[in-house]
Order: sequence, then C-alpha cells, then structure tokens
Amino acid sequence: MVKIAIDAMGGDFGPEPIVTGCIQALKKKKFIPILVGKKDEILPLLPRRYRGKISIVDTDDVISMSDAATDAVKRKDSTIYKAMDLVRDGEADGVVSAGHSGATMTLATLRLGRLEGVSRPALAALMPTKNHRRSILLDVGANVDSKPEHLAQFAIMGGCYAEDMFDIDKPSIGLLANGEEKSKGNEVTKATYKILEGYKGFAGNVEGGDIFNGSTDVIVCDGFVGNLVLKSSEGVASTVSGLIKEYIRKSPVSITGALLMRKVFKLLKKQMDYEEVGGAPLIGIKGCAIVSHGKSGPKAIKNAIFQAIDYTETGVNEHIIKRIADLNEKQSTKG
Amino acid sequence: MVKIAIDAMGGDFGPEPIVTGCIQALKKKKFIPILVGKKDEILPLLPRRYRGKISIVDTDDVISMSDAATDAVKRKDSTIYKAMDLVRDGEADGVVSAGHSGATMTLATLRLGRLEGVSRPALAALMPTKNHRRSILLDVGANVDSKPEHLAQFAIMGGCYAEDMFDIDKPSIGLLANGEEKSKGNEVTKATYKILEGYKGFAGNVEGGDIFNGSTDVIVCDGFVGNLVLKSSEGVASTVSGLIKEYIRKSPVSITGALLMRKVFKLLKKQMDYEEVGGAPLIGIKGCAIVSHGKSGPKAIKNAIFQAIDYTETGVNEHIIKRIADLNEKQSTKG
Repeated sequence: MVKIAIDAMGGDFGPEPIVTGCIQALKKKKFIPILVGKKDEILPLLPRRYRGKISIVDTDDVISMSDAATDAVKRKDSTIYKAMDLVRDGEADGVVSAGHSGATMTLATLRLGRLEGVSRPALAALMPTKNHRRSILLDVGANVDSKPEHLAQFAIMGGCYAEDMFDIDKPSIGLLANGEEKSKGNEVTKATYKILEGYKGFAGNVEGGDIFNGSTDVIVCDGFVGNLVLKSSEGVASTVSGLIKEYIRKSPVSITGALLMRKVFKLLKKQMDYEEVGGAPLIGIKGCAIVSHGKSGPKAIKNAIFQAIDYTETGVNEHIIKRIADLNEKQSTKG
Repeated sequence: MVKIAIDAMGGDFGPEPIVTGCIQALKKKKFIPILVGKKDEILPLLPRRYRGKISIVDTDDVISMSDAATDAVKRKDSTIYKAMDLVRDGEADGVVSAGHSGATMTLATLRLGRLEGVSRPALAALMPTKNHRRSILLDVGANVDSKPEHLAQFAIMGGCYAEDMFDIDKPSIGLLANGEEKSKGNEVTKATYKILEGYKGFAGNVEGGDIFNGSTDVIVCDGFVGNLVLKSSEGVASTVSGLIKEYIRKSPVSITGALLMRKVFKLLKKQMDYEEVGGAPLIGIKGCAIVSHGKSGPKAIKNAIFQAIDYTETGVNEHIIKRIADLNEKQSTKG
C-alpha cells in the first residue's frame, strides 16, 4: 500500500486542518499516512479509532514562512527534512507539505535527488479552464533563468504527467510566448522551440490566454514567468470577486440577486478553487512531493494526498525517465 | 490647439467606430482631429456639420493584422506611416491607432525617434485595481529580452507618466518579480534592482498580485513578461465571466438573480473595461502614440484621443528627458 508522509506542522493554521484532511483522505482511500510533527500537538487531534491507522514521526522543528529556503538543508530535524528522508529511506513513497514551499522544493531536490537525465525539477500548477478541465502550467517557481534544455525537459515531464495522471492519450504541449507565430518569443523560448520542433504533441507557441481556454494540455515556461502568471491570475480573480462583493453591498436589490445566484457562485468557486487539486506536484524528483498552499484547509490536504497516491501508483516517474532519455539521445544526435 | 492624427482604417471593424469615436471626442474637448484613411469611405460617415472641423489625409494602404510588422517601414502610404509622419513634420502632436500594434510601435519608434537618452520605448498598460485606480504596467510588449538598463528606464518613464497623467505626487515604482525579498528575481531584475536602489519612489520587488491590488502605481517588467501577464489576466477575466454566464443559463432562479444583479455587472464591466482608458501609450518616443485594441469601439477611440491630448498638454516627454538624463548621469558616475 502507498505510504504518504505528511508535514503536519507547516501550514499557516497549524496541524488541525492537516490532520483533519488526512483523516478525510483515509475515509475515502486506502493508504498508509505518516504524520511528521509535534506528537503532543497531533495526538489530541486524532480520534481514538484512527490512532492505530496513522503513525506519527515526532519532531519539534518547523521551518517557518519567514525562514530562508537556503537554511533548510541544515534543519535536519525539521518536519520537511524528516518527511523527505522517509521517502529517501524507502519508508514512504511521497510527501505532502503545506509548509515553506521553497524549503520543500529544495529538500525534495537535494534529499531525494533528480530522476535520471533530469537537469531541473519543475513545479506544476494545475490551472482551471473554461472547458472544466485542468491545464498543466510548468514551471511555476522552482527555477529562474531556465535554459532552453530545461524548458524542453519541462515539456516532456508535463506531457508524461498529462498522460498518466489525466489519462490524456496525446497531450498537446505549448510553449508560452508573446505570440503564436514561430518568430515570437524571447531568446530562450525561440531556442526551446527549435529543440521541441517535431516532438510528438508539440503545439508550438501559445499565448497567456491559452492557459485558461483549455486549448492546450501542457504549457511550458520559465519559473520566473510562471510565478508571475500564476500570481497575477490569482490577483485578477480576487479583484473581480472583491469588486462584485463591494458592488453587491451597495444595493438591496443586488443582495437579493446575489442570493438567487448563490448556486452560480458556488459552482464558480469550485471550478476556480485550488483546494480542488490540493497542491502543485514537483516533477522530476525521485519520489513524489506535492507542494500545497500555506492556507490549505482539510479539503486541499485530502486532495493533495490523493494526488500523491495517484502519482506513485501511475508510475509517472519511470515514464519520465524513459522519455527524457529519448529526448537527450535525440539532442546529442542533433548536436 | 492640440492636433491628433487618427488611423481611421486599422481597427477590426473598419472606419465606422473610429470616426464615431472621433466625433464623440470632439463633442467633449477642443482639439484638431486629422483622420488618416480612405477618403471615400470616411466622408459618408461624417455628418455635414463636422466636415469643416475634421480634416482627412487620403490614403489607400492599410496594414492588416496578418502583415509582418517588419514590412511596415516599406509601406510609406499606409495609414500608420502617414499618421506618424504628420507628427514628424509638425502637423500633428500625437497618433491614435487601433491598427497593427507591432507596426504602430515600429513606425512610432523609427519615424518619430526616441526621446533624448531613451534606449527603448515601452508600451504601458493601464491596469484596473481593487481600489478603483489604474496601475501602470510597462513594458507590455514593445521589447523582449530587455536589459537591466532598459528596465530602469521603464521605471523612470512610468514614474513621469504617473506624476503628469495621474497627478500622483510621489508615485511608487515596483519591479515585478517572483517574490518581494531583494534576493528574489531573475538575473535581469536583480541587476535592475541594483540600479534603481535608492531612486526616489522605488518600492523594491512586487509580485504578480500587486498589479491589481493598487499597492503600487508603476510596475516594471520586460515586454515578454508583461505581454504574458496581460494576456493571462484577460484570460482569467474572460473565463470567469464565461463560466458565470454558463452557470446562470442552467437555472431560472439564477437568471432572475442575474437580472437583479445587472447593476453590479455593469459597474464591474466599467471597472475592468479597457475601453475606459482607450489604449496603451508607447512611452519614450518624440511625440505621442496611443496603441488601441483592434476591437476598439467608439468609446475606446474617444478615450484614446483624450489620452493623446493629455499626454501632449502635460509635457510628460520633457519630464522624461530630464529624469532619464539624471539617471544616466548617476549611472555613469556609479560605473
């Protein structure tokens, strides 16, 4: 059975939503959960009947959001470090953490190591689209100043993820650029285009709007760009929802209207909600790490655990190793 | 009186909305409009009483959206080329075009030239924010692969625009990056940070979400990044509105609710609508060029004309020349 190590302490709201999410996951799926954190804080949150089903790895140190990610390697007793080492030692298959995302990515990369042939792991965001599917945007923050070879690998890794996790036969892979024409892009994306040209599923350049219209399954970019796209998109959504609320409050008629539209807003929220996917997978490492939002509630943690189980069971990592080897071979023949 | 040359043909819907927008502007403000385009198509759209107030520069050639921007320099009879040359020859002060934006930027830069000391002009988008103001995001597409020196100049130019056009005393200027800490950013933004450090109004790094929360007046980025942020933000807004419409249609109760909420949606649309600002100024050229959306209706054209008039009257260009000289001097002393 799949074993998932869960950082019980790292989230913004302490262990409560994380332990609750873990229990909710256990009610739905069979897996072995290992909570990593302060035992005396976790134990009181566990109903007696779950105590036998969930093991706890007791540790005191929690990397806080204000700590530097670079210090993470020294914090050997931190929840994230211990969770990664459970995977490293074969005692767990994957990690879910709502803690310091920089530390999670650094420790996953350093303690678990990269998959054979992979130069840089990439963080993938599962974005909501118009046609009710998710598009895979990567990298959204694991790397800045990526080179064309890195972006090409992100394309391959995103494609494998789409095939195995979303069951898409021939995922389309787009390169994020400032125009669809081949001539568009910056120096890095133009060079990436040349590497990917002719690759199965490569759909050429795609634009910012294509992330949300569902036209492309996998969208590749540098982590600096991906982070900005992600944060600005969240900013738009939050501004729109803030303005709607502000305008509604100004008129009783609108308040009535909003009450009648409750179902619409609920469906919309469900569609846009990051809690529905639970977290962003760091793709390209030996093992599995799901980076969840610091503000994750139980639902997000539950879904992140489901993602980690799926990730492990589908064998996406073996798939990636094979495809990256193909790419690297083609590249060396070309060069 | 300020003279504005208007590309009458370039928009997606032909001359009608552009001529109408021009007349609407004339009803509100005193200026001298010069419509550049096919006289026999424009004239029938002009009510008799406006024929004496609007002059027409007759030309047949229209650069279409599918043409390459690089060909624009050869199209000496095109509406955009002729409009720019009116400014070059002192017969107009500014240009408004809803035509080929690449051609407009290229011709503005080549025919009008850059302001003294300016290395690269930048296209500025006026973004809606939570607190009902507009933030200035630049560059959104005039340049890719900008160097730190370019980004620093964008910061100065954006600051001058905010002071003169938005009447902000001490505009705050942020550098778009993947985190607020000074250590965040890519190679280019980190080097830009060093140039801008200590500059009046420089607020350090800002994140994607800050574009829409109104915390910063001017936000600086490379044109590749700015284009992606702009397009993906439009994508989110259009996806949210599409989903709301889809969900509303599914239930009669929601339809009633939506009717009662009409005023809310109208206010929201007004707030987010690009037609309210009319277009994006290309900052850093000798003269003034407002790049409007191809789909601009009369309101957008009217507002773009108002922006061009304001731009000319406030003397923002002289302001930019002075500030850029200060920056370049400081840079050469530092170096």
